[in-house]
Amino acid sequence: MRNFTFSNPTRILFGRAVVAKLGPEAARAGKKALLVYGGGSIKKNGVYDVLTATLAKEGVAVTEHPGVKPNPVLSHVRAGIKKARENDCELIVAAGGGSVIDEAKAIAAGAKYGGDVWDFFCGKAEIREALPLFTALTLPATGSEMNSGCVVTNEETAQKYSAQSAALFPRVSALDPETTLTLPPRQVANGAVDTLAHIIEGYFTAKDPDAAVTDEIVHALARSAISSTERILKDPSDYNARASMMWSATLALNGLAACGYGGVTFINHAIEHSLSALYDIAHGAGLAIIMPAWFKHHLKTAGPARLEKFGEAVFGTRTAEETIRAFEDFFRKTGAPVRLSEAKIPAADIPRIAENAMGLIRLWGMKHEQPEIEKILSNAK
Amino acid sequence: MRNFTFSNPTRILFGRAVVAKLGPEAARAGKKALLVYGGGSIKKNGVYDVLTATLAKEGVAVTEHPGVKPNPVLSHVRAGIKKARENDCELIVAAGGGSVIDEAKAIAAGAKYGGDVWDFFCGKAEIREALPLFTALTLPATGSEMNSGCVVTNEETAQKYSAQSAALFPRVSALDPETTLTLPPRQVANGAVDTLAHIIEGYFTAKDPDAAVTDEIVHALARSAISSTERILKDPSDYNARASMMWSATLALNGLAACGYGGVTFINHAIEHSLSALYDIAHGAGLAIIMPAWFKHHLKTAGPARLEKFGEAVFGTRTAEETIRAFEDFFRKTGAPVRLSEAKIPAADIPRIAENAMGLIRLWGMKHEQPEIEKILSNAK
Repeated sequence: MRNFTFSNPTRILFGRAVVAKLGPEAARAGKKALLVYGGGSIKKNGVYDVLTATLAKEGVAVTEHPGVKPNPVLSHVRAGIKKARENDCELIVAAGGGSVIDEAKAIAAGAKYGGDVWDFFCGKAEIREALPLFTALTLPATGSEMNSGCVVTNEETAQKYSAQSAALFPRVSALDPETTLTLPPRQVANGAVDTLAHIIEGYFTAKDPDAAVTDEIVHALARSAISSTERILKDPSDYNARASMMWSATLALNGLAACGYGGVTFINHAIEHSLSALYDIAHGAGLAIIMPAWFKHHLKTAGPARLEKFGEAVFGTRTAEETIRAFEDFFRKTGAPVRLSEAKIPAADIPRIAENAMGLIRLWGMKHEQPEIEKILSNAK
Repeated sequence: MRNFTFSNPTRILFGRAVVAKLGPEAARAGKKALLVYGGGSIKKNGVYDVLTATLAKEGVAVTEHPGVKPNPVLSHVRAGIKKARENDCELIVAAGGGSVIDEAKAIAAGAKYGGDVWDFFCGKAEIREALPLFTALTLPATGSEMNSGCVVTNEETAQKYSAQSAALFPRVSALDPETTLTLPPRQVANGAVDTLAHIIEGYFTAKDPDAAVTDEIVHALARSAISSTERILKDPSDYNARASMMWSATLALNGLAACGYGGVTFINHAIEHSLSALYDIAHGAGLAIIMPAWFKHHLKTAGPARLEKFGEAVFGTRTAEETIRAFEDFFRKTGAPVRLSEAKIPAADIPRIAENAMGLIRLWGMKHEQPEIEKILSNAK
């Protein structure tokens, strides 16, 4: 086990009707909030009404910033920063999925910064402070509700990059599984794939794989994410399955699943970000294509040991090849694409995708060259 | 899954040589520290030298409060509070195992309180503030390094009671597995049993056992605690096993292992506290006696389902009876006693032990009567 630091100050309110508790929490941070949300699903599932009511009751005035896109874009982040400044917002409240929370984080940091917010994403500046953030999560997937990272796409340059800072941990996140009961199956699938991707990146790129407790936690989270998703697909109204999935997704990327591995890399994410930056594809769907392709590459270059161990513990499989097939079978069961062709991305685009991915790979300090990335992508034809 | 709140602000520094990083962390909280430790093992394993050097380097003056006993006693806590006040201590630094950290927490709260510190333990007062606490853990067992509770024994009344408050979370805890390499096998055993007890209390007393993700995490922590202990018993110099055990013990009682179960009770702990309050027995050894006895009672009153599920996932057993035997076998393998007679506690004392336990059971609001506790204890004859 390598040395690590674990620190996660986000307070989680979990369960039925917890969104109504956000008002008093938020009011402690200020009286003027920017309310960030997406395409309006929070108006259908009731979260908008509950949230605005509890904020109003506590005397928190709200400026609305709706319209966050899946894969949030820089221009909309900049517009949010402008609104936050013009209205002297002292805090941010985000209601929605990971895209909404990520955009809210970027706005929270950008509002406190003299330069352009993209500086944080392209490595020109570090985030030292941010407006306090409160979130109501409605889509389990990204883990953004309990971590310090965010991802934004610069639509001018087609770069989907990330920023990270301890200042970005949400103060309080409210996770009500009932708000996820109406999610369409496609979003359940994307969330499940994204969660699994977060669970496995550290496990398969560990510098030191002799971290028994973290291996066990990774297996545990993978098993519960898979079994909960299967229960949800069978019965979308299964509250306990929704709850288990929601908490699994949060724990998947709150730091626990990488403790002691030492310098893990997010190679699957680095490659996928190019797919969702270049094509109209959900992050989860992109990952379902990249992961099996990367596993095949991992098997050739690193050998079968980790795939065998993971497969035995999670799928009951015996060989590395069976483990990769079990991943593909699970992704297919959720309805996710597992090949580029299934997402209508032509194989001829592989060099272009790999070239785009190299930007993030260099920025994140990974040691991969473009031919290797093209080879991985070829496994996904 | 029931509603829950998860909040754990303690920052963990984990790995080789992390104790030397505590000076700069502590210095941010003040320049006068009370250094709490036990019988002097920290002078043998080097922690004392490293800690006093890093504190001195950062200009933090130290008042020493050594001599904390295993199962820390109220009179020594009161003496520590007096010292902290007389020397205007602004922070507490604890170096040792759970007993040292628990006493440090009681001192941290007592130093900020006008009344007698025992008020917090017998339910007369709530802890609202405490001096900031920094810890260097040298014995994985109690989880106190990353939670908000502490246990102190009032030696005048033979009451081993607990107190809890968000103000008691350590600010920073340094966990260096190398400091545990010299632990005697008896302390390895006690730590392993205590850790397992923390892992299982919520699982077996859950109001709602349909919390798949938490079940999986409980299984994961139990498996890693058991396998790491077996590695340590075989090769005490196995750093990765020590590290895995240390992190497992911390995660066992930091809140994770009970999320969503709803109103869990610490019945094994409530009964055991009487053993270590009345007899000269380590908490871990007491738990190794109580747990199998309580499992037998649980099997009769609640049925085999949870014991079967746990046993299959952790021990590979098939029946509830086999699961209980697997626990006993593991405890025996570590050298812990599993019957009252093995700890030289006469069966004739059972009514007295049960009567003592009722104090804590009532204080913790559990619904058990003395005859039931006597019945459980009779299973341990």
